[in-house]
Amino acid sequence: MDLIAETVAAIAPRDTAAEAAARAHLARMTMPPGALGRVGDVAVTLAGIAGQCPPPLPQPAAVAVFAGDHGVHAQGVTPWPQEVTAQMVGNFLSGGAVVNAFATQLGAEVCVVDMGVAAPLDAAPGLLLRRVVDGTADMTAGPALTREQARRAVEAGIETARDLVAAGHRCLITGDMGIANTTAAAALICAFTGADPAAATGRGTGIDDATLARKTDVVRRALALHRPDPADPLAVLAAFGGCEHAGLAGLILGAAALRVPVLLDGVNAGAAALAAAAFAPDAVGPCLAGHRSAEPGHRIALDHLGLEPLLDLGMRLGEGTGALLALPVAQGAARALQDVATFDAAGVTEKDGGS
Amino acid sequence: MDLIAETVAAIAPRDTAAEAAARAHLARMTMPPGALGRVGDVAVTLAGIAGQCPPPLPQPAAVAVFAGDHGVHAQGVTPWPQEVTAQMVGNFLSGGAVVNAFATQLGAEVCVVDMGVAAPLDAAPGLLLRRVVDGTADMTAGPALTREQARRAVEAGIETARDLVAAGHRCLITGDMGIANTTAAAALICAFTGADPAAATGRGTGIDDATLARKTDVVRRALALHRPDPADPLAVLAAFGGCEHAGLAGLILGAAALRVPVLLDGVNAGAAALAAAAFAPDAVGPCLAGHRSAEPGHRIALDHLGLEPLLDLGMRLGEGTGALLALPVAQGAARALQDVATFDAAGVTEKDGGS
Repeated sequence: MDLIAETVAAIAPRDTAAEAAARAHLARMTMPPGALGRVGDVAVTLAGIAGQCPPPLPQPAAVAVFAGDHGVHAQGVTPWPQEVTAQMVGNFLSGGAVVNAFATQLGAEVCVVDMGVAAPLDAAPGLLLRRVVDGTADMTAGPALTREQARRAVEAGIETARDLVAAGHRCLITGDMGIANTTAAAALICAFTGADPAAATGRGTGIDDATLARKTDVVRRALALHRPDPADPLAVLAAFGGCEHAGLAGLILGAAALRVPVLLDGVNAGAAALAAAAFAPDAVGPCLAGHRSAEPGHRIALDHLGLEPLLDLGMRLGEGTGALLALPVAQGAARALQDVATFDAAGVTEKDGGS
Repeated sequence: MDLIAETVAAIAPRDTAAEAAARAHLARMTMPPGALGRVGDVAVTLAGIAGQCPPPLPQPAAVAVFAGDHGVHAQGVTPWPQEVTAQMVGNFLSGGAVVNAFATQLGAEVCVVDMGVAAPLDAAPGLLLRRVVDGTADMTAGPALTREQARRAVEAGIETARDLVAAGHRCLITGDMGIANTTAAAALICAFTGADPAAATGRGTGIDDATLARKTDVVRRALALHRPDPADPLAVLAAFGGCEHAGLAGLILGAAALRVPVLLDGVNAGAAALAAAAFAPDAVGPCLAGHRSAEPGHRIALDHLGLEPLLDLGMRLGEGTGALLALPVAQGAARALQDVATFDAAGVTEKDGGS
């Protein structure tokens, strides 16, 4: 059995008994019923992921920033030059990006994964070299990746999840870097959800109207060219790329098989989660949507996945930055289940009848 | 000059030069323009509060949980017995409440301030004894506090801010505990904003329809009895209490005078911030709304103050829990201004023209 099939076979639904135990414990905690709102829901989900109540704290956490380049860049979908992908990888490795600042603040590790950057990259501490191609091919001219390349990219993501969990991480956070990758994300979201390119394609880094029109047309032409079967996620990933989306899909599958929670960042993570769900519907079980990106395709992806984002701060940076800011919500939820006293234990009187 | 007047006189608007410097620095950071969304706005605000760019990190942080009891409890506005206020103070001091769990997770200190609990409380580490009354009087029968008691409660809040900042804290988080205090909060919000009691009164801990109707009527009767002048915040605080709202108003004034950011929790903090703004409009300048409470009066208060909450997770627990979960957003915003490389420094190419 190959690595993807083996991983998919290991993925189970969240544990409903542990979730019920978490709900029952929340009801005994020294607070009014339901007063934690969605934080209580997160606590229940974490118990279901781990299969135990209280669940382990989702820490230490690592943000895995999957990096790749995109042949569709040649179609003029962004004003940013392709070389910025490799430059930003250097910036991540020297600690100068926003993801580094947030990770420092939150005690998380930043792990950069070269999945398919076009330019050469030297080995460096904090950089995992798992390159599948030197940038994908242009999706408007043919498949971005071969099916075998797409498979290898997913496998690299699974291996990354295994490595990070083996290194002690108990929460994985998705990050991404790749100039033009919101074009690939939009195509993936359309392919998996049936959404129209005009609805799913956004301004990414903040492109102007003319560029947005060109980008939307690129997504529409690519979809018309490939017409991939959404039930065949390798075919979809091969058609549009990118390597970072395939890698993130693998990261989600790998984490799900290990029952480790995944905090999803923005639109690229949403596209990857759609791919993961096409491999294994229960792969979404350990996923928490960290934030709502300003990118319109993100909402479409999350609605399709049945996920509600924890934060909504108008961010559209990628790198894992939005998901990182949601990490304390997940950690606080688990900590509350572990630490908070019950009415009996604390000697706090419960309310009189009624509600 | 008395302590309140002296404090109000020391409050200045946020520093627009520091805010402009923060905006300019954000534009040079290695990210697309505006990609941090509201986190960028928070970074600008923090620079304006401190009067320097980058601003200091808002840490260490302390959550000050102001506790008090309410004579209006006798009107049957909640099914929780009044003794729970003192019991929960004990729970905070022994580390068993949700605020303790979240504070532990986030490295914040919990400081409990007895402003007016009805039952006797023993001195204990972590408890500041600043009691003004043994619970307020019933606002439906007369003023909850005398004007002098209200003044002493505001002063106790100012002193608490001074003490916490003197102890090294660089971010203050509002917390509150007081059975029936959302009734006082609703009355305060109506008094300061002109809102109708039916719009501002909510279910607090989760009361049933009959109790909500009674609570709304209590607020309406108290407003009709006192008709306080919203331009005289001591009169409003005296009319309705509670001691914790007056204390929180003082905390906000004290922090504003010291240019230290304040993360506001839910509806009780919103009511207190309205009082602080009535003393000094610029007292709202250093306030960030941590979260949107499920309580309807909270939205009215925040709209009146021109504040947009950072989180919206359906929480309605108080204690400072919602604001605590927003602390990493503020800390991440300041950290980004301090740490993130500029395009020039990182050798990252900027986009070609257009947007």
